[in-house]
Amino acid sequence: MSEAVGVGLLGLGTIGTGVAKVLDRNASIIEQRLGFPLRLIRIADLDTQTDRGVDLDGIQFDDDAAGLINDPAVKIVIELIGGYDIARRFTLQAIEAGKHVVTANKALLALHGEEIFSAAERNGVDVAFEAAVGGGIPVLRALREGLSANRILAVEGILNGTTNYVLTQMESTGEPFDVVLKRAQDLGYAEADPTFDVEGIDAAHKLALLAAMSFGVRIDFKRIPTEGIRGLEPLDFQAADDFGYRIKLLAIAKSRGEGQPIEARVHPTLIPKASMLANVDGAMNAVAIRGDAVGPTLYYGAGAGELPTASAVVSDLMEIAREIHRDASGRVSPLSYPHGGLRDHPLAPLGDRHGRCYLRFTAVDRPGVLSHITGALGEEGVGIESVLQPGRGDAGESVPVLVFTHPAEEAAVRRALEHVDGLPDVTAPTKLIRIEDDL
Amino acid sequence: MSEAVGVGLLGLGTIGTGVAKVLDRNASIIEQRLGFPLRLIRIADLDTQTDRGVDLDGIQFDDDAAGLINDPAVKIVIELIGGYDIARRFTLQAIEAGKHVVTANKALLALHGEEIFSAAERNGVDVAFEAAVGGGIPVLRALREGLSANRILAVEGILNGTTNYVLTQMESTGEPFDVVLKRAQDLGYAEADPTFDVEGIDAAHKLALLAAMSFGVRIDFKRIPTEGIRGLEPLDFQAADDFGYRIKLLAIAKSRGEGQPIEARVHPTLIPKASMLANVDGAMNAVAIRGDAVGPTLYYGAGAGELPTASAVVSDLMEIAREIHRDASGRVSPLSYPHGGLRDHPLAPLGDRHGRCYLRFTAVDRPGVLSHITGALGEEGVGIESVLQPGRGDAGESVPVLVFTHPAEEAAVRRALEHVDGLPDVTAPTKLIRIEDDL
Repeated sequence: MSEAVGVGLLGLGTIGTGVAKVLDRNASIIEQRLGFPLRLIRIADLDTQTDRGVDLDGIQFDDDAAGLINDPAVKIVIELIGGYDIARRFTLQAIEAGKHVVTANKALLALHGEEIFSAAERNGVDVAFEAAVGGGIPVLRALREGLSANRILAVEGILNGTTNYVLTQMESTGEPFDVVLKRAQDLGYAEADPTFDVEGIDAAHKLALLAAMSFGVRIDFKRIPTEGIRGLEPLDFQAADDFGYRIKLLAIAKSRGEGQPIEARVHPTLIPKASMLANVDGAMNAVAIRGDAVGPTLYYGAGAGELPTASAVVSDLMEIAREIHRDASGRVSPLSYPHGGLRDHPLAPLGDRHGRCYLRFTAVDRPGVLSHITGALGEEGVGIESVLQPGRGDAGESVPVLVFTHPAEEAAVRRALEHVDGLPDVTAPTKLIRIEDDL
Repeated sequence: MSEAVGVGLLGLGTIGTGVAKVLDRNASIIEQRLGFPLRLIRIADLDTQTDRGVDLDGIQFDDDAAGLINDPAVKIVIELIGGYDIARRFTLQAIEAGKHVVTANKALLALHGEEIFSAAERNGVDVAFEAAVGGGIPVLRALREGLSANRILAVEGILNGTTNYVLTQMESTGEPFDVVLKRAQDLGYAEADPTFDVEGIDAAHKLALLAAMSFGVRIDFKRIPTEGIRGLEPLDFQAADDFGYRIKLLAIAKSRGEGQPIEARVHPTLIPKASMLANVDGAMNAVAIRGDAVGPTLYYGAGAGELPTASAVVSDLMEIAREIHRDASGRVSPLSYPHGGLRDHPLAPLGDRHGRCYLRFTAVDRPGVLSHITGALGEEGVGIESVLQPGRGDAGESVPVLVFTHPAEEAAVRRALEHVDGLPDVTAPTKLIRIEDDL
């Protein structure tokens, strides 16, 4: 029973190096907890030259991924290559070779999860991916096991550290998006091409996984309405603050009840300052999960980074290794429900959302404009809670008009905005930010 | 593989009723996730007459606990009797009969855990107790599995909803302790005899379990320095607020490194407003766990109540049932380390603590008093960051003097207080509240 479990690592980049470090420095504590050792015996990476500052003594390190996958001593393959194509190919090869797989690759699972989870089920192996959502936060385990007695009602998360860092900075400095993004890039908080993060795509990948696990449904992440943080202005943070809110990029999935469509969306959101999620600052992540029995819960931690991500990868390795030792692989379905049991399920159209909104109109500062705006909202039955005109322009200059609505159907708000944005005095498209008061 | 797993419930009080409700209303979702049904087949309680408002159709319900324990159809026994003696006896009987046990009884485990976990290890059965710490929050699972790759550095939690409710109310209303406690009792947030909660004993029970799981050590909860929330005054909340803090009853366990004594203590604490723990209000609970790889994490939710607690109990049942089906019982050690592997380990004396303090002196408002106080602190090498004298009394009347210290050794602070409290002008014992800035 005390035989070591052999592990192979594909990809020795930042996270891969972190995994090697954690396995090395915490080897004795890991063995104490498991009752047997977990051994990194093989690594494959195209770059075998760069010194990563980690002790690889006794580990076979070359560029032979196929050899690693087919090495009979390797029982678990860690995929940390990233991207889609090669990662997909190696993952499927490993599964077909009867190897368990641990990955941090949310993009891969959001796009090819269907294929990968089916193959794993067929081959009786585990695919673990705690690191793919919320980095080091053990939130998938919470959803899959800790809250397994619950009907899940809602999942709402800050799932992307880059955007949360940018939003926190915009709020505290009052600086515009481009300035803050540039600094985030210089500091290494944002990538040279920040599109995936800034446009909300990375958060949508993660939400697709969370929603599938929460509701037992198949979710095509491309169908998730996704809006990024470009287009937010310092003014929006000021207005949010004045009304007791902070702005966060939230990934939201909600059940409307048995047989009803599921809401899933990613967008900047005004949330009450007193909520736990509102206090998640900088590059940190958090996920709020509401269950019918447990009520509201929240999980917080580092959503990225070498060691936090490695923490999740190695914890997954340990879980799989325990099951190998007990001959109990596949103990829990990776998506919480047996893969064959996932239902196709409609997503609610965004226009169905019923809730409050913050609207930033941009109009020439002329008498009558305000009445046109409020009139258009009124005609669609959208009630107004407050109107703010924070600045006065010179004659003919454009100024912002800020409106907090009462709860309304989004389709009605959209119709009103279409009308307003066609008015000659309205000089820029109106910005809509959804308000979630239930957090 | 699709055979139902039979469950027996000892104790149909509030939590027991919640368990019956969750098993009933979520039966289909539980079966989908498990791949087989989980069936409550038998309940024992002395009171078989009271209607608990839950459907017990098809469940054998009588007062025969021994019969339930020895019923061959019962594979898992839920202990929800509470208290020590009978709960201990039934738990050990169930274990000896080869039954797995789920319990929410922290007092039982804090006092008799040694005996119970040993018996479980000997008999090859599981003892699960997620509900015993943090109610519905799946924090023990996080510690045991989600963060298993980490060396745990610190655990800091708001583990008692009653005291957190009282503190939140004292802060928001400015009312004294007795008034708020009385109202909490009227509203059902505090028990008629609130000693266990208010004195921090319940939190110490839970901390003993968390510390054992975090550090792999045997902790006798009676050795944990424990201080309750009696003795806090509205003035303390005001001063904390002015300096950017809130006051929470924290249960704290910290590692000082390999081979060093472990810090474990329960006491009111000033924590920075911006920290996640500071934003845990009302009867909610939260646990912050720091690991060497993952960094800071936090888990938040309802720490008590019928359905949140039932959520944890039923999730434990599901985990054990999965293992029964896979013949993989004992997959994870209940205390994270094999029970035989728990080390006896010294606790650091409280005087060893190095940190900042808030001190409330009470002295006659007379020239020279302040210099005596600051002089006593200075003599012990305790640096002063700020001094506040919020009120002026009439000649000869006692007034508070509030001091925020620089980081100092607690033994030195204590010596200074002993000296000050012996001064003729000092009319009441000085109140010390520890400050934790690292949260």
